[in-house]
Amino acid sequence: MSTTFRHAHRVAFHETDMAGIVHFSNFFRYMEEAEVAFLRSRGLHVSWHAGPLRYGFPRVSATCDFLKPARFEDEIEILVTVEQIGTKSVSYTHEFTRGADVLARGKVTAVFVRVDADHKLQSAEIPAEIRAKLLDGTGN
Amino acid sequence: MSTTFRHAHRVAFHETDMAGIVHFSNFFRYMEEAEVAFLRSRGLHVSWHAGPLRYGFPRVSATCDFLKPARFEDEIEILVTVEQIGTKSVSYTHEFTRGADVLARGKVTAVFVRVDADHKLQSAEIPAEIRAKLLDGTGN
Amino acid sequence: MSTTFRHAHRVAFHETDMAGIVHFSNFFRYMEEAEVAFLRSRGLHVSWHAGPLRYGFPRVSATCDFLKPARFEDEIEILVTVEQIGTKSVSYTHEFTRGADVLARGKVTAVFVRVDADHKLQSAEIPAEIRAKLLDGTGN
Amino acid sequence: MSTTFRHAHRVAFHETDMAGIVHFSNFFRYMEEAEVAFLRSRGLHVSWHAGPLRYGFPRVSATCDFLKPARFEDEIEILVTVEQIGTKSVSYTHEFTRGADVLARGKVTAVFVRVDADHKLQSAEIPAEIRAKLLDGTGN
Repeated sequence: MSTTFRHAHRVAFHETDMAGIVHFSNFFRYMEEAEVAFLRSRGLHVSWHAGPLRYGFPRVSATCDFLKPARFEDEIEILVTVEQIGTKSVSYTHEFTRGADVLARGKVTAVFVRVDADHKLQSAEIPAEIRAKLLDGTGN
Repeated sequence: MSTTFRHAHRVAFHETDMAGIVHFSNFFRYMEEAEVAFLRSRGLHVSWHAGPLRYGFPRVSATCDFLKPARFEDEIEILVTVEQIGTKSVSYTHEFTRGADVLARGKVTAVFVRVDADHKLQSAEIPAEIRAKLLDGTGN
Repeated sequence: MSTTFRHAHRVAFHETDMAGIVHFSNFFRYMEEAEVAFLRSRGLHVSWHAGPLRYGFPRVSATCDFLKPARFEDEIEILVTVEQIGTKSVSYTHEFTRGADVLARGKVTAVFVRVDADHKLQSAEIPAEIRAKLLDGTGN
Repeated sequence: MSTTFRHAHRVAFHETDMAGIVHFSNFFRYMEEAEVAFLRSRGLHVSWHAGPLRYGFPRVSATCDFLKPARFEDEIEILVTVEQIGTKSVSYTHEFTRGADVLARGKVTAVFVRVDADHKLQSAEIPAEIRAKLLDGTGN
């Protein structure tokens, strides 16, 4: 499977910390922004309502290795790759670059869930239509 | 009305920015934390579910004057005062101190809303029971 | 003075809260992003180093009125207007729109400061070159 | 090595997202708060100035598995364990609990760095005095 997607982000001032670099927690937010943009490019969402029910892809695992710091106003790129689609989950890898520099590498696994009226999350099989859109590396 | 409440907060590393001080947006989050703690001390909440409906106090206005910077690991105190309770809204003033220093002064106005099944917010009269708890400066 | 600038922002998932709308504190971050983008369009920055010294425009006042909620994936626009340039400070007004809807109106005042080697902030006159770039509404 | 530390956190409203649960990125901020509190209990810091130089422990790796969601106003506990201290780095594991429930398990590796006058980060050996404080599981 070679489903990749490229997302650009310019570092905001509020994303830096007193060490003068992007706070490490924000790389996880960047991964989410890239994942959301990828999903949107496929006509999908990370969370949505369908009447009284809500569906979504909350993360069950996230990891990141930080190689070089990112700084205020840097233009960074996140390359998202769909690594694996299971029955109920999908895994993405993320490579962060600034020009030729690789800044970080991350991975996120999200599980498809249904949230019912009393706000309980329950994992569920990824519907065929969503799976097809996740898999389709040719259309867009 | 002299309803006041004191909330302590120690500045987290991720709340600082590259200027070495607490990012100004976090003072608004501190105001919310103090407001939530005040509400909790009265048996109230800033957002809650009641069956299919949700209720809450979203903010319609927020302002802050920043006098001195706050820094990493500072122990700051936020003094919340209920300034005014209208039919549908409540206003709080917030004074931020670090020891004898006043760091900032803010004000937030929140409106009571009901959120229905299709996720629309609608302002509503503050119920008598909630109003009584907001007003009661003697009990706690 | 009619110096205006338009900045677009798509609402990220992590910017929402459990009420299903953008957390009010993020509007202040959006104002900053718009201010930074405006400054960048003039060849300016909100914070920068010059050898051992740092310069910047920390905010001394920020206010926002919230008229309608913004939601996940909304494309919003922030219209920044330089309202006033004093000797040491600059004020911006911000209008947030989503299509024809005005979502919020804010105002931020920033003061020009020099940060010396022992990390103390000291306000200073805005240098003529920076003032000229802030004022120039015709060039860009 | 059995160096452990317990840190309590009550979930703030702004830490939730539209799925009604704590946004996954905030678990990484909770890990940092717990790490900072642990360091403080040993007379240490995650970032500090010494004249023109700055020292600190930026993270080079962070990972978290999310088992159960955390919600607004939950009182959670983070149990920090120093897992390994290398020449230049230190690794912590974090267990998040709410009562008897384990909510998440994480791990962070931080590297000791010196930041010089031109703001470059350089890894360095952890000084003996800091190492001794990190190791000392008996004193506090």
